[in-house]
Amino acid sequence: MRLSRYLLPILREVPKEAEIVSHRLMLRAGMVRQESAGIYAWLPLGKKVLDKICNVIREEQNRSGAIEIMMPTIQSADLWRESGRYDDYGKEMLRIKDRHERDMLYGPTNEEMLTEIVRAYVKSYKDLPLNLYHIQWKFRDEVRPRFGVMRSREFLMKDAYSVDLDFENAVIAYNRMFVAYLRTFARLGLKAIPMVADTGPIGGNHSHEFIILASTGESEVFCHADYLDMAPPPAGIDFRDPAALQATVDQWTSLYAATEEKHDEAAFNAVEEGKRLSARGIEVGHIFYFGTKYSEPMGAKVTGPDGVERPVHMGSYGIGPSRLVAAIIEASHDENGIIWPDDIAPFKVGILNLKVGDAATDATCEQLYATLTAKGVDVLYDDTEERPGSKFATADLIGLPWQIIVGPKGLAAGTVELKRRADGARENLSVESALARVLG
Amino acid sequence: MRLSRYLLPILREVPKEAEIVSHRLMLRAGMVRQESAGIYAWLPLGKKVLDKICNVIREEQNRSGAIEIMMPTIQSADLWRESGRYDDYGKEMLRIKDRHERDMLYGPTNEEMLTEIVRAYVKSYKDLPLNLYHIQWKFRDEVRPRFGVMRSREFLMKDAYSVDLDFENAVIAYNRMFVAYLRTFARLGLKAIPMVADTGPIGGNHSHEFIILASTGESEVFCHADYLDMAPPPAGIDFRDPAALQATVDQWTSLYAATEEKHDEAAFNAVEEGKRLSARGIEVGHIFYFGTKYSEPMGAKVTGPDGVERPVHMGSYGIGPSRLVAAIIEASHDENGIIWPDDIAPFKVGILNLKVGDAATDATCEQLYATLTAKGVDVLYDDTEERPGSKFATADLIGLPWQIIVGPKGLAAGTVELKRRADGARENLSVESALARVLG
Repeated sequence: MRLSRYLLPILREVPKEAEIVSHRLMLRAGMVRQESAGIYAWLPLGKKVLDKICNVIREEQNRSGAIEIMMPTIQSADLWRESGRYDDYGKEMLRIKDRHERDMLYGPTNEEMLTEIVRAYVKSYKDLPLNLYHIQWKFRDEVRPRFGVMRSREFLMKDAYSVDLDFENAVIAYNRMFVAYLRTFARLGLKAIPMVADTGPIGGNHSHEFIILASTGESEVFCHADYLDMAPPPAGIDFRDPAALQATVDQWTSLYAATEEKHDEAAFNAVEEGKRLSARGIEVGHIFYFGTKYSEPMGAKVTGPDGVERPVHMGSYGIGPSRLVAAIIEASHDENGIIWPDDIAPFKVGILNLKVGDAATDATCEQLYATLTAKGVDVLYDDTEERPGSKFATADLIGLPWQIIVGPKGLAAGTVELKRRADGARENLSVESALARVLG
Repeated sequence: MRLSRYLLPILREVPKEAEIVSHRLMLRAGMVRQESAGIYAWLPLGKKVLDKICNVIREEQNRSGAIEIMMPTIQSADLWRESGRYDDYGKEMLRIKDRHERDMLYGPTNEEMLTEIVRAYVKSYKDLPLNLYHIQWKFRDEVRPRFGVMRSREFLMKDAYSVDLDFENAVIAYNRMFVAYLRTFARLGLKAIPMVADTGPIGGNHSHEFIILASTGESEVFCHADYLDMAPPPAGIDFRDPAALQATVDQWTSLYAATEEKHDEAAFNAVEEGKRLSARGIEVGHIFYFGTKYSEPMGAKVTGPDGVERPVHMGSYGIGPSRLVAAIIEASHDENGIIWPDDIAPFKVGILNLKVGDAATDATCEQLYATLTAKGVDVLYDDTEERPGSKFATADLIGLPWQIIVGPKGLAAGTVELKRRADGARENLSVESALARVLG
């Protein structure tokens, strides 16, 4: 992409309304624009990051055996009356009357609809296990939306729903998602720690929030410091092997980790000196086994091997890609801007032409741009007439992992400058060497 | 994908509620499920087709220079009061009050919001031309939603918006989209004919509906038969060359083509005998130049090269991917089911194991499945215990373009059967030859 033909509305000033660094940087980098309170349009740069995050999530969901569908945003109130949640859900639910005065709502989540689909099509234990997910916009009418896309009203969510014959199989399904989440967050460059969360009336040990540590987090968390160095499960882990999954879950739940609500001071104090970590945390995922809570009242039943019909055991598994954009920035930035992990950077490489109009710099930049584009690399070519200082600032602000700086002085010496955003390392290299490094 | 681990709820009976063939086939093939009147969940097979259609649209939009963004579904009524459309738009607009009693709405289209974004960020003619698009769910509260996803209430739409300094540049932008649409429909296997559409108070010749002929179409159309053999613009067409674009548009508007509303009987009768085609048509796209209709009242202005500020000239360009799924089926099916064009088939290849449990057929199927999957081909492996007849029927119903049929008899002779869905051609081939044909 040529920057001269792109829409990248950089703000040089720090927006006053933004309280946390991710919100400030997303506004400054021209990633989003607020259209109403807690409702954002995603501008080109933001959309690209959002897509890349969704693709990582999708790959890991598919790898675990989950199947993608797409449920609508508008739901019938009747569906929620079946589960009893229509009246329970408070003002966060956006309630709507259509032209025929029917009660509708903008889905804040999809347990009811998914259960309805299961009820319609899944009749036998032979159709199980099943895990269906979608990535769709949700709406929760927060009283006070804030922190940009971190706590917005309209937000993107990946929600998966597992369906199994009984508790034992549901735990295997739960573990599959647990492992998929660990892999997902690691690929997004996040050190997410699974913490036991409230399971409400169902009880048991099968609800976890995945939390990253960040000074701007909304809640206080307590955990063993060794979590920060734990290696995520490998790509080759066998999702059809319950024992391998359980071993991973056991490892990742073996040390102390709790949110404020579930914090146990005595247990925390039993953690060895120097390993006790208390910090602020941001929730980036939540997985939950809820048994027959919806299948029972809604009549989603299957016939077991014994010929007896019984309600299916279910769980739900959420990750918010739009919130993740902000969470990743909270976890990875410096005073100059965002530092994207390579896999989700909007553009992997920036080419900075320091003297547009100069035949040599133009030719070299065009050559770099053509070569990288042909290799399928996402490149942003800064072909604008801005000053060099402004180009450096923009490339750092928007967090381009690799920056190839092309100026007349360097070219006279046969080199371009290659800069790595993460550590600021710079090297003068031939064009060929710079390409080799970026592609390597 | 192994069919035994997939959710593909095939209906053997013809659903009574479905009036048109695409609706019947989408229900029978387990592609969608109605959740409320005119509101559908996309089941796994439907979601895959929808994604493939979106990808074709996206590739052609990007090729033409349009840039992807993502605007929210929920909009503020205030934005629509600025343009004057809040009161004009009738009951089709889903109006909502949020918890603070603010007037909101579910966007039926995005001209206002896009104009607001342009107003905020685009200040100079140097930032133009600009074309921003998104692919997002829209809601139009139809009195009588019908024909499945062909006329639903919640539907997916790609809407693009061009922004230019003046009329002359806006026409170039219009032509870019005209050409991109021709390419898009051709890639989707559709013979879409651009027909002059109403431009309302703006006048001029810059509004076209793209229409495919189908007996179940909702409107009557009249055109020159030669449109059906016209070759679409090549992939290499230069979108930066206004003359090349204009020549293509001229070619595609040179012959008679009109919807009922714009039909001119005298002009139609002037078409040579034997070339007059009157048929039913389905609208699959609509492009529209609307000048300063929104930029003027909303104050979206740029400074021209002369230093004078003026409102930008805009156009909008819509394609409905969810409706396209149905339109493609209307255009491409037979008595056995759907016939997908290769590029948007949910799975390019089906492997039909006629005797699950037989060591030889199992081994051959697994080998085929592993080889094709490793090559990145989307494969559906029917590893269920259904009868052969049922497997044949399913593969044809869901429209798999290539079907590799593996049975003990064939294997004894060293062959599998390769069937082409489109023409039903069958051949007995070695495994290697079958693979070569499918991959070739």
